Formats: sequence, structure tokens, C-alpha cells
Amino acid sequence: MNRNQLIEQIREKKSYLCVGLDTDVTKIPKHLQSQPDGVFQFNKAIIDATKDHCVSYKVNTAFYESQGLKGWEAMEQTLHHIPKTHFTIADAKRGDIGNTSSQYAKTFFEVLPFDAVTVAPYMGEDSVRPFLEYEDKWAIVLGLTSNAGSNDFQQLALSGKNNGGRLYETVLHTVSSWGTPGNLMFVVGATRASDLASIRSIIPEHFLLVPGVGAQGGSLEEVTKYGLNNDYGLLVNASRAIIFAGGGEDFAEKAKIVAAGYQDEMKGLLGA
Amino acid sequence: MNRNQLIEQIREKKSYLCVGLDTDVTKIPKHLQSQPDGVFQFNKAIIDATKDHCVSYKVNTAFYESQGLKGWEAMEQTLHHIPKTHFTIADAKRGDIGNTSSQYAKTFFEVLPFDAVTVAPYMGEDSVRPFLEYEDKWAIVLGLTSNAGSNDFQQLALSGKNNGGRLYETVLHTVSSWGTPGNLMFVVGATRASDLASIRSIIPEHFLLVPGVGAQGGSLEEVTKYGLNNDYGLLVNASRAIIFAGGGEDFAEKAKIVAAGYQDEMKGLLGA
Repeated sequence: MNRNQLIEQIREKKSYLCVGLDTDVTKIPKHLQSQPDGVFQFNKAIIDATKDHCVSYKVNTAFYESQGLKGWEAMEQTLHHIPKTHFTIADAKRGDIGNTSSQYAKTFFEVLPFDAVTVAPYMGEDSVRPFLEYEDKWAIVLGLTSNAGSNDFQQLALSGKNNGGRLYETVLHTVSSWGTPGNLMFVVGATRASDLASIRSIIPEHFLLVPGVGAQGGSLEEVTKYGLNNDYGLLVNASRAIIFAGGGEDFAEKAKIVAAGYQDEMKGLLGA
Repeated sequence: MNRNQLIEQIREKKSYLCVGLDTDVTKIPKHLQSQPDGVFQFNKAIIDATKDHCVSYKVNTAFYESQGLKGWEAMEQTLHHIPKTHFTIADAKRGDIGNTSSQYAKTFFEVLPFDAVTVAPYMGEDSVRPFLEYEDKWAIVLGLTSNAGSNDFQQLALSGKNNGGRLYETVLHTVSSWGTPGNLMFVVGATRASDLASIRSIIPEHFLLVPGVGAQGGSLEEVTKYGLNNDYGLLVNASRAIIFAGGGEDFAEKAKIVAAGYQDEMKGLLGA
């Protein structure tokens, strides 16, 4: 999916919601846990219930890998069930030397035809480039994450020509020169919404994938206030807050209500 | 496998060689490419031919994932074919917020019972901790990698209390406080052997996993000179230089010759 198609989806739905399919098999309703393809059945119901309220789905690969071969089958089935109108993200946080990153790009752009994959920046340019070489595919590089550990390294102060800046700011600045706002996005956590203003001054045009709204406590209003740009430029992800909104047989209806609630709030924030 | 068992293996074999199974299906001999389980057959032959000369095998997960379900089957078969005497590494470079890293730890320590998994440090402590909570299992965290992109961020100079230091030095120092030399190793690239001396002053006791010898041009002699400690403290990895030493039906014999050559050189360097 290209940038214009994504913007058009957001415009139509007045939603920049991404639903995170962090489908922990131990947390899905009991009646599905016993089924051989319970994870897929759960995701299928969630997708069918929420697709009118979101523009994107993010599959957290860890929860599928930890189920072995069965998990990879569920990931494949899930991806193929997502409507082509929705922007699909493999949240895999990959990154390695060039020839290995090429294999990861093949995995998540060809074998599993996602639109985007999340990428860790620590190994630098040759670890990110292979993800930028596919037409209408995207690398979503970690900038400032929403977890406590983001203080350990991302917030370190730099010296030299980056004097006074933080590591994550240099990551945003440097990585943005490797691609374009048409093939590169950044992960920016919602739990630091006040940092979004300074982030927007470094990368005014790029889409930001913002996790941490909902279960992790971020505020949608603040994220939107500081993160929105002329092309929207935001995908706000909620995972557990939506998919585990209910724990019984009506889990999909409960998920729909929460997703619709986010969409309503977004409509309001967009002034629609 | 625990630290003493690993040290004992190195002492017995006078080898600290790790063979990297970066099994690119397009580079294995033609007669195996056509077989449904060609990747596993290739690995099996390589393992059988090299096991007397190395103490560890490193499986580069990207090359398996890119083959889809069949690739994960090949990875599983390969892992189960490696003798229990050998230290097994999933080179997966994972890392995410705590609840997600827990899933990755489950994947590579339980579903696929590797001894160790490589981990990217960018997301900080809670992204690494779940890998340290398994007895006799290891996190091998990226310190200074061997690729060109390691200059982009790893070598950035820091200010403040880390004044004058490089990012990778703070990563080594900080991460080492989260675990012990019994559950934590670091990836340190061989292409900067001269940096190993300063790295050893930060983490004198930890094992280092050193890629970049062989195809990437690092020198085994320099790595050993600067990296060896009283418990050996080194696992030197060679992948393509060994497994693709030959391209014909005698590929395993060719691999054995190269692996035995590394072992001989290591014996000499250890003064055995």
C-alpha cells in the first residue's frame, strides 16, 4: 500500500486506528483455546468486528512464533483474512547485517505479504536498507519507544556534532535520510506525548506508529495534538485494550465497541 | 548449557569455534536444492562433518523464516540434530517490550530449546530481562557489530556522565549490570579487533560472540590476542567461510577442512 492510499483510508473512515493483534493464546476466550485454530478464529472475529473502525492491523510476531509451526500458520491465515483496504504491519522488530536483513525483508514482504515491518536501528544503515528496496512496502523504525527501558539508551545525551541531542533524536534524523516519507515510518511511544512536538520538528512529514495508547496509558488527545500533520501522519495502535476488552463469547462485540470508541474520539479530534 | 560446561567443551577440543548455519537455500549444492528437506539435509551433513572441530552452532533465523513454514521445520530439525555437547545459538536479534520479549524467550528457549538467543539492546532493560530468567539459558546482546552500519549509532560519542564514551561502551556497561557472566554474553564484531582491548576492560569476564571472521575479513589472531580471558571467554563464529567452502557434492568435506583449519589455528593460539 502506498502513502496516498493510506491517507485516503484515513480520510474516508476518519480513523487512524491500528488494531494490534497481540493474540496471546492464554488470554483468548476459553471456548477458543481448545480449538486447533483458536488463534486464527479469534483474530478472524476481531478483524470482522473492528475493520470498519480502523485502517490498519499490526501483528505482533512474537505471540505467533511462541506457538511454533501452528503459530506461523495462524499468522499467515490472519494476514490473508485482513481486507486489502487495511495497512498491514508485521511488528517483528528485525534488523541484522545487510544480507540477513534481506532475508527478513523477503519473509515479511514476500512470503508473508505485509505492507510494513518494524525494524530496530542499532545496527545502522545496511540493516535498514533492504527493507526500503520494495515498492509500496515500508520499514517502521524504532525511534522512541513507550516502555520503561526506553530511558536506558534512547534518551542518552550525545556530544560532538550531536551535542545536547538525545540518541533517539539522532536516530530519527539519520534514519530519515535513508528513505522517504513514502517508504519509512517511525515508532514513537504515546507515553511521552510531550516529546512528540520536538519529534515533529525533526521528521515533520513521516507517519508515526504510536503504540502505548490504552493498556500502556497514553493519551489519544495528546498524541493527536502533537503528532498530527497535514497528511494525518499518525497510526495509533491499541492492542490489549481492544482485543481483550471482553473475555467471554461476546469478545468480538466488546472489541468492536472499544474500537468504535477510538474512532469516535478520532473523528472529534480531526474536527470532522 | 551452563558456563562451566561450555568452558569444559572448549578445553577438551582446544576450539572456540562456532559454526554459523546461515543456510541460504539458493547457495546450497544443486542436488540438495531440489529436495523438499534440502536445507536440513545440508545442515545435517555440515554438522556431522564439523562437530569435532567446533563447540557451538549458530542458527541465523532469517534464512529459515524466509522459507516460511518449511523453513521453521528445517530450523527445528537442525536444532534437534546438533549434539547436546554443543552450545546452540538462535541468532534472531529479538527485543521488544517486556511481555513481548517473554514470548520470544519462550520461542527460543522452550518451543525451540536453544541455549542462547541474540538480543538487540535499543529498547533497554525490560526488553532484555525476560531472556535472563531461564536457568542455564543465555542472552547474547549486541554490543559492537561488525557491519558498516555499526558506525551510525554504536560509535556515537556521549556526553553527561558518559562523557567521552561511545554508545556501545555504555551498552556493554549497562547491560552487564542486568545479568551475570553466567547468563549474558555480548556480540562484538571481529572487524574491530583493536577495540577488543577496551571492551575487555569494561566486561572482563563475559563471553564474547565474535562474528566477522572469515567472509567478513576479521583476523582470528587479533581477536584471540585481545579477546581471550582466563575462561577463554570467546566464541568465534564463521558462517559462509565454512558452510559454503565447497559448492559441489563434497561440500561437507570442504566444510570440515575449513573448520579443522580454524581449530588448528585456535590450538596454536591457545598454546596447546
